[in-house]
Amino acid sequence: MEVLGDNAFSSSCNTLGFLQKNNSLEERGRLAGQKNLLSCDNSDRDSCYRRTETDFSNLFARDLLPAKNGEEPTIQFLLEVVEILTNYIKKTFDRSTKVLDFHHPHQLLEGMEGFNLELSDQPESLEQILVDCRDTLKYGIRTGHPRFFNQLSSGLDIIGLAGEWLTSTANTNMFTYEIAPVFVLMEQLTLKKMREMIGWPGGEGDGIFSPGGAISNMYSVMMARYKYFPEVKAKGMSAAPRLVLFTSELSHYSIKKAGAALGFGTDNVILLSTDERGRVIPADLEAKIIDAKQKGYVPLFVNATAGSTVYGAFDPINEIADICEKYNLWLHVDAAWGGGLLMSRKHRHKLNGVERANSVTWNPHKMMGVPLQCSAILVREKGILAGCNSMCAGYLFQPDKQYDVTYDTGDKAIQCGRHVDIFKFWLMWKAKGTIGFEQHIDKCLDLSQYLYNKIKNREGFQMVFDGVPQHTNVCFWYIPPSLRGMPDTNEWREKLHRVAPKIKAMMMESGTTMVGYQPQGNKVNFFRMVVSNAAATQSDIDFLIDEIERMGQDL
Amino acid sequence: MEVLGDNAFSSSCNTLGFLQKNNSLEERGRLAGQKNLLSCDNSDRDSCYRRTETDFSNLFARDLLPAKNGEEPTIQFLLEVVEILTNYIKKTFDRSTKVLDFHHPHQLLEGMEGFNLELSDQPESLEQILVDCRDTLKYGIRTGHPRFFNQLSSGLDIIGLAGEWLTSTANTNMFTYEIAPVFVLMEQLTLKKMREMIGWPGGEGDGIFSPGGAISNMYSVMMARYKYFPEVKAKGMSAAPRLVLFTSELSHYSIKKAGAALGFGTDNVILLSTDERGRVIPADLEAKIIDAKQKGYVPLFVNATAGSTVYGAFDPINEIADICEKYNLWLHVDAAWGGGLLMSRKHRHKLNGVERANSVTWNPHKMMGVPLQCSAILVREKGILAGCNSMCAGYLFQPDKQYDVTYDTGDKAIQCGRHVDIFKFWLMWKAKGTIGFEQHIDKCLDLSQYLYNKIKNREGFQMVFDGVPQHTNVCFWYIPPSLRGMPDTNEWREKLHRVAPKIKAMMMESGTTMVGYQPQGNKVNFFRMVVSNAAATQSDIDFLIDEIERMGQDL
Repeated sequence: MEVLGDNAFSSSCNTLGFLQKNNSLEERGRLAGQKNLLSCDNSDRDSCYRRTETDFSNLFARDLLPAKNGEEPTIQFLLEVVEILTNYIKKTFDRSTKVLDFHHPHQLLEGMEGFNLELSDQPESLEQILVDCRDTLKYGIRTGHPRFFNQLSSGLDIIGLAGEWLTSTANTNMFTYEIAPVFVLMEQLTLKKMREMIGWPGGEGDGIFSPGGAISNMYSVMMARYKYFPEVKAKGMSAAPRLVLFTSELSHYSIKKAGAALGFGTDNVILLSTDERGRVIPADLEAKIIDAKQKGYVPLFVNATAGSTVYGAFDPINEIADICEKYNLWLHVDAAWGGGLLMSRKHRHKLNGVERANSVTWNPHKMMGVPLQCSAILVREKGILAGCNSMCAGYLFQPDKQYDVTYDTGDKAIQCGRHVDIFKFWLMWKAKGTIGFEQHIDKCLDLSQYLYNKIKNREGFQMVFDGVPQHTNVCFWYIPPSLRGMPDTNEWREKLHRVAPKIKAMMMESGTTMVGYQPQGNKVNFFRMVVSNAAATQSDIDFLIDEIERMGQDL
Repeated sequence: MEVLGDNAFSSSCNTLGFLQKNNSLEERGRLAGQKNLLSCDNSDRDSCYRRTETDFSNLFARDLLPAKNGEEPTIQFLLEVVEILTNYIKKTFDRSTKVLDFHHPHQLLEGMEGFNLELSDQPESLEQILVDCRDTLKYGIRTGHPRFFNQLSSGLDIIGLAGEWLTSTANTNMFTYEIAPVFVLMEQLTLKKMREMIGWPGGEGDGIFSPGGAISNMYSVMMARYKYFPEVKAKGMSAAPRLVLFTSELSHYSIKKAGAALGFGTDNVILLSTDERGRVIPADLEAKIIDAKQKGYVPLFVNATAGSTVYGAFDPINEIADICEKYNLWLHVDAAWGGGLLMSRKHRHKLNGVERANSVTWNPHKMMGVPLQCSAILVREKGILAGCNSMCAGYLFQPDKQYDVTYDTGDKAIQCGRHVDIFKFWLMWKAKGTIGFEQHIDKCLDLSQYLYNKIKNREGFQMVFDGVPQHTNVCFWYIPPSLRGMPDTNEWREKLHRVAPKIKAMMMESGTTMVGYQPQGNKVNFFRMVVSNAAATQSDIDFLIDEIERMGQDL
């Protein structure tokens, strides 16, 4: 009845409306123009809450719960923190706020106006702790700002944020149903829903949320190895022949990292050639498989990328799947970045064939705007995830509990403790529905196309590849007036290579916007624009173009 | 000046005190006895805040920021969530609240009074989302409750919680200074401080926060391999001889998991015998090293546990270090559970020799009460962590940035994106000081000794091992009256084996307290009590003993 109770309270408490300070309702009208006197934080509100004047300079951590009489200071302290956070949130969405207030490492280390990062033996007052909280936000990056385009993960989803606040208040661990009953079930249902969207019959299979796409990809390689060479678990890699993995030359480095970590060796991660749009050339895969077999190596695993990091390219999954079937290889689809498109009826065709994969990485914390971090590894065959990782530690996973212990997930993971990454995602899905995610994704792709259309023929801009981008990635050079109309010599390229870093540095110094750049292969530094931020609009895209031109015109 | 501004507001806003509803100050005195009418939530408060009467049944996620006019609903929604969370927190510390309200998986899956876990295509109203938040907490476990003793991680630290709320609001990623300048520096300074406490000269070395102790331990094995056989990174395990790892038979399973994952094979993880207290017998280590060498294997790595999971045993690090030096092996100390004792002048001697380790795992989220998760892997030699993991992905870590890119940590990690686990810990250290952690740890160990003293000679209780526990782990059997004074036969043991699970099931059904149990080796199920919860007192220990006796008396 807690729910009813709370609701009942909140309506009875609020029916009479807000009365600020000591003014009666009559006075309220009279004083309507005097906002500074009337209201907290200069805004019109209609209710009372319970934040009190508290002198935090004489309060310390030891005065908070579980201390005796700790309830009041605890609530007041948390409300003060929430005040700081809500102010931060409001400003984050306000375009007149800077994206960042840049300082060099040595500046922050030396201490900014009383913001001292050093730790000491003695406690600091809660007042100082609140100042530290404000300063931490002040000198950080507003990744939710409408003009923050620097990463594949951007934006600040309010539902997701509420989910994170609740998750940290619940402060538990995913490894058994015993201590995370609700979260464990949410994870199970959500993973099933994701498998349905991939297209596996009945949503069957298995999966787990892991700490990021790199670890999810690592899981896929481990599962492939366990599927074909289960004896490696006990005997080590020496029990297997020389195994090789295949992935695009433009794929995420995590496949190579997995190769190094898991004992394959990076030399045995064979890179596949790509076409002009950055997509794997299937014929190259087949040629390299044949070549490896001729050398006596054993092809094990192919990674197809659905949404590459820089180009946003989607490898042709169906053609790759044909080859994997022909040679009996594990097919993994790294859809960390592109997986969100499965939510869009308009764009999901870009992942056609994903239902033929043995495993899929899909990071809701990227394209779907879920707060960091939230990454899933999904696998079609049941039992393989547990088979590969289980150690059956009786002291952690007791088989003689009173509930159905098949819900205990800990032994499937390479982690022991595992952070609750599911709740924020589940809550967002509840709050938006599948159609809400679809609208977000379609809008982001529309915005990218808007950018593409604006710059493809614009003077001073040159696209890195031709044609409409497959994902929200738009890759381009900005060519300053001083470099336009000149022959493409090495010297010219070296100059162009320095343009993007210079503009980026100016952006950060001025704090107006942030966008990524990088070289790729023999291509000198270019900008990679991506849109996953729900706050971005066409005007922000226009702003970005203007900023680049403004900052780059004299280079 | 933001800080001053906020403070100024908060005092000017609050000087006149709280006025609830539309009552003037005069009326307030008159109505002082009528709390239900006067105040929100029946408590005395002295200020106004800004929560308003909001009809969330007609509001949806799409109405929140970044929506036009989304600021007001956003703030109101977040304040409503905070109201739910602060109520939850207050109740968590209240001993009249249950630790849990147990339901079986099928019950929760079938839906509890409108709590439906299924996801759908259409959005739900914010009112339903708030109900879902309440229900999620209602059917979860109060891991911060003073009588929750089930895990090595327990308690709910208010400063740490505030840190998590801020972290999720900042919503960034640890992998570059560019997008996490403050957090990256906090991590660097905190790791240095931890290395100083370990005793490495000048706090030199390296390290990283990882998603849990199992991954931290995995890092240690990877670093050992890279140190002695760097060619494995490129060539795979086939470039190395047969490598073996040594760890206690009672150590955490993560060393074995790392052996399986990294391609060593679990057969090459050699388990060391322990004494009656669960500590590694150094002579057994040396014998097994010699034996492995005679078989032609190459000993690589020894894990010494500082605070084992079940017994809380500390392996003799100095004696193990002598052997590692003699045979030139990598010494890792898994102090995930015991590391916190380094903060205590009274107890840190239990880790004597830790300064001789090559690497150390230390989880502040266990003994130090930091919210989940927060685990550090620390390494004495600089450069080895990066050497082992770096892939130099130019598209992620651009060398031509305007700041000192040695602060970019991403390429050291096996992860790409990495959650910000540092801030809550840094903030707690600021707020408590080293001495605050010390007091917490000393208190927990005192409480365990209190428990030990109460039950060591108590009828119906039998200790699993003799002597004062080294850590807060107290391991014991409860022997119901029906099993007392009987010969130790197989049948008797089988009966005793069923006692702890039965009592645990009753505890969970009644929701009064939670403590772990497990078998170990040839020992049948016994209780493992641990204290890391700052809220626990002697009365809670007494309560636990009474509950076990009450529930077990008729078994």
